[in-house]
Amino acid sequence: MATEAGKILLELFVIFAAAKLAGELFERMRQPAVIGELVAGIVLGPSVLGLVRSGPVQETMSTLGVVVLLFAVGLETRASDLFKVGKTALLVAVVGVIVPFALGFGYLSLLGQPARTALFVGAALVATSVGITARVLSDAGLISTRQARIILAAAVIDDILGLLVLAAVSGIGSSSGPDLGHLSLVLAMAAAFVGFQMVVTPRLVSRNSHLVDRLRVGNAPLVVSLAVLLGLSALAESVGLAAIVGAFLAGMAFAETGDRWSLEVQTRPIADFLVPFFFVVVGSRVDVRLLAHPAVVAPGVVLAVLAVASKVIGCGIGALGEGRLSALAVGVGMVPRGEVGLIVASVGLATGLVPGAVYAMVVLVTVVTTVLAPPLMPAVFRLAASEGSVRSKGTHPACPSLLE
Amino acid sequence: MATEAGKILLELFVIFAAAKLAGELFERMRQPAVIGELVAGIVLGPSVLGLVRSGPVQETMSTLGVVVLLFAVGLETRASDLFKVGKTALLVAVVGVIVPFALGFGYLSLLGQPARTALFVGAALVATSVGITARVLSDAGLISTRQARIILAAAVIDDILGLLVLAAVSGIGSSSGPDLGHLSLVLAMAAAFVGFQMVVTPRLVSRNSHLVDRLRVGNAPLVVSLAVLLGLSALAESVGLAAIVGAFLAGMAFAETGDRWSLEVQTRPIADFLVPFFFVVVGSRVDVRLLAHPAVVAPGVVLAVLAVASKVIGCGIGALGEGRLSALAVGVGMVPRGEVGLIVASVGLATGLVPGAVYAMVVLVTVVTTVLAPPLMPAVFRLAASEGSVRSKGTHPACPSLLE
Repeated sequence: MATEAGKILLELFVIFAAAKLAGELFERMRQPAVIGELVAGIVLGPSVLGLVRSGPVQETMSTLGVVVLLFAVGLETRASDLFKVGKTALLVAVVGVIVPFALGFGYLSLLGQPARTALFVGAALVATSVGITARVLSDAGLISTRQARIILAAAVIDDILGLLVLAAVSGIGSSSGPDLGHLSLVLAMAAAFVGFQMVVTPRLVSRNSHLVDRLRVGNAPLVVSLAVLLGLSALAESVGLAAIVGAFLAGMAFAETGDRWSLEVQTRPIADFLVPFFFVVVGSRVDVRLLAHPAVVAPGVVLAVLAVASKVIGCGIGALGEGRLSALAVGVGMVPRGEVGLIVASVGLATGLVPGAVYAMVVLVTVVTTVLAPPLMPAVFRLAASEGSVRSKGTHPACPSLLE
Repeated sequence: MATEAGKILLELFVIFAAAKLAGELFERMRQPAVIGELVAGIVLGPSVLGLVRSGPVQETMSTLGVVVLLFAVGLETRASDLFKVGKTALLVAVVGVIVPFALGFGYLSLLGQPARTALFVGAALVATSVGITARVLSDAGLISTRQARIILAAAVIDDILGLLVLAAVSGIGSSSGPDLGHLSLVLAMAAAFVGFQMVVTPRLVSRNSHLVDRLRVGNAPLVVSLAVLLGLSALAESVGLAAIVGAFLAGMAFAETGDRWSLEVQTRPIADFLVPFFFVVVGSRVDVRLLAHPAVVAPGVVLAVLAVASKVIGCGIGALGEGRLSALAVGVGMVPRGEVGLIVASVGLATGLVPGAVYAMVVLVTVVTTVLAPPLMPAVFRLAASEGSVRSKGTHPACPSLLE
C-alpha cells in the first residue's frame, strides 16, 4: 500500500548496491572506487538502463552525499594549514582561472562562434569541482599532504572567482550589460562569508566547546556539527557559492575540537552511507548518446583536452614554487569540472547565447575531466612524493591544544 | 544559481536544527526528546508555521530515518530472543488486534455509521506503529528488556495481521467482495518473508561473514549491512508489509555478527543524523486546525480513548502471564498508531466508504496515541521493573559465539 516509501527505498537500494558493487570491482582492478561509482551511475542512468532518473529524491541524496564528503575533508583541515599555503593557493586559483578562460574563449572563437558564446564557454571551463579530487585523495590517504591543502584552498578561492566570472558573463547576456555595482556586491558577500567562516567560526566553536559538552541532547558534539554543516551549506548557496564550500568550511570549523569529540570517526559511517549517492547521480547525468554525434564529439574532445591542459598548465604555473612534480600534482587535482560549469553553460543555453551543440560539448568536458582525474591522481601524487614532503602530517604540532 | 540544492539544504537545516533544539528543551524538562521532535514537527508543519510541507524530499528523509531507527533496534535483537517470547507475543498481537477492531467497529456503529464505514475504522485502529515505541525504549536504555522484546515481536506479527485485515476490508470496498484466494496469498507471502528473514538470513550472514571480511570496498561490514537494510525494507513494502518490518529484520540478521564489526557503534551517528527527520515529518502531518471542529473533536477524542484503552487492555490480556505491571508496560508500548492506520482510512476515503469527518477522527487518533505513549512509557516500565526481570541483558550468554 505505502508504495511511495517502497519506491524510494527500492531506488536507494539499487543506487547504493550498484555503487558498492562497482566500487569493489574497481578496487580489485586497482582503480579508485569512485570511478566504479561514476560508471555505475552512467550504466544506471537514463541513457543506458534508465533505472536512475533525475528528481528530488536523487537531488536530496546526492546533495547530502557531497556536503558530508566535504565536511569530512574539512574536519581534517585546520584554517591555519590553509593560510600556510595561502599565497601559493591564490596564485594557483588565479592563473588556473585565466588560462582555461582564455583557451576556451580562443577555441570557440576559432570555431567561428560569436564572442558572447565564446565568453560563456570560457566561463564554463573556470570552476574546479573539488568533490571528486577530495574523494580520491581522501581514499588514498593523501588528504593531509601539502599539495592536497593547496588544492583545497585554491578550490575555495576558485569558487569565488568562478562566481565573479559567472556574474560578469551573465551581465553580458542581459540587455543592460554587466552591472559593476551588483558584481562587486556579489564578490564582497562571498569573500566576507568565506573570511568569516575561516577566521571567526573555528574560534567560536573552540571557545564554546564547553557549552556543547553541557548539552543534554544525545551525542551533542556530532549533532551540533551536523546542524552547522547543513546551515553553512545552505548559507553558502544563498550567497551564490557552492554548497560544498560551506560544507568544507563547516568541517574546518570543527577541525580543532573534532579529535576530542571523535567527529572524524563518527562522520565516517555517515559518509560511507551517503557519499556514493552523489557519485552515482553525477554519473547518471552523463548521456552516452552524445558520443554518437560527430558534430559534438570532435570539437568536444578538443575542448576537453584544452580543459585538462589549461588547468594542469595554469594551476601548475601557480604552484611551480613547490617543485615541478608537486605543481603537476596540484594541476591534475584541479582538473575535474562539475556542476558549476554546467550551470554556467545552462544559463547561456537559457538565454539563447549558447547553442545546443555547444552545450553538449561542455557536458562532454565535464565527463572527460571527471573520469580522467581519478586514475591519474594517485600516480601523480606518488611521483610528487619522490620530490619529498608530500606527507605533511608531520608538520602538525605533536600535541595540538584542544581548548583555545 | 544552484538554488535547488540550496532549497533542499535550507529545509533539512530547519528540520534538523528545530528537532534537536526541541529535543534539548524536552530533555531539560525530563521528557523524552522524541516528543520535542514531534512538537517541532507540529509547529513547523503546514497548520502552524508552514516551513515543512509534504513532498519527496521530506518523504525520502523520513523514510530513511525510520528504517535506520528500526535497523538499529534490530541490531540489538537476536532472533532467538524473539522466539523466546514468541508465544506471549503472538497472544499480545492477536488479542491486541481483536479488541481495537471490535471497539472501533462498535463505536462507529453506535454513532450511526453504516457497517462498511465502521469496518474501515475498526481496521484503522489495528496496526501498532512501533517506531515511536522503539525510539523511546532505545533512548531510555530499555530496548533489551523482556517487555520490549515482546513488543517488538508482537509488532511484527501485528503488521502481518494488519495486512490481513486491510486486505479483507479493502475487498469489502470492492464490488466483488473479499477475494479469499488473494487474501491467503497475501498472508502467505508476508509470513514467508518474515519467517525466511528471521530463520535463514541471520545464518546466511554469520556463515558468510568471512566473505564480507575479505571485501576490498571500504568498511565492508557496514556497507553490506546498509545494502541489506535498504533491500529488505524495499522488499517488505513490495510484499505489502511496512518498510520498518524489513528494516528491523535486516538489523536482526546482523545482530550476531554486529559486535565484531562494531555495527551498533557505527549505526549510531547515522541514526543521530537521520532519525529526527522521521519524527519531525510525522509531527508536521498533524493538522492542529482539526481541533477547531467540534463535530470531529468530541467523537474523535472518544475514539482516541477507545484506541488507547483497547490496546492497553487487548495487549495487556495477551501479556498477563508476565505479571500485571509488565502486561501494562507491553500494552502501553503497543498504543501508538501511525501510517498504517492512516493508509487504511485513506483507502476508505478514496472509495467513498469513509466520510471526511470520520477520516479526520482517525487522524486525531493517530495524533493522540503518538503523543500520549512517549511520556507514559518510561514511568510504566519503571513500575514493571519493580516486578523484577525488566532488564534481560543478563540472560544473554556471557560470551556469545561470534562465528557459527
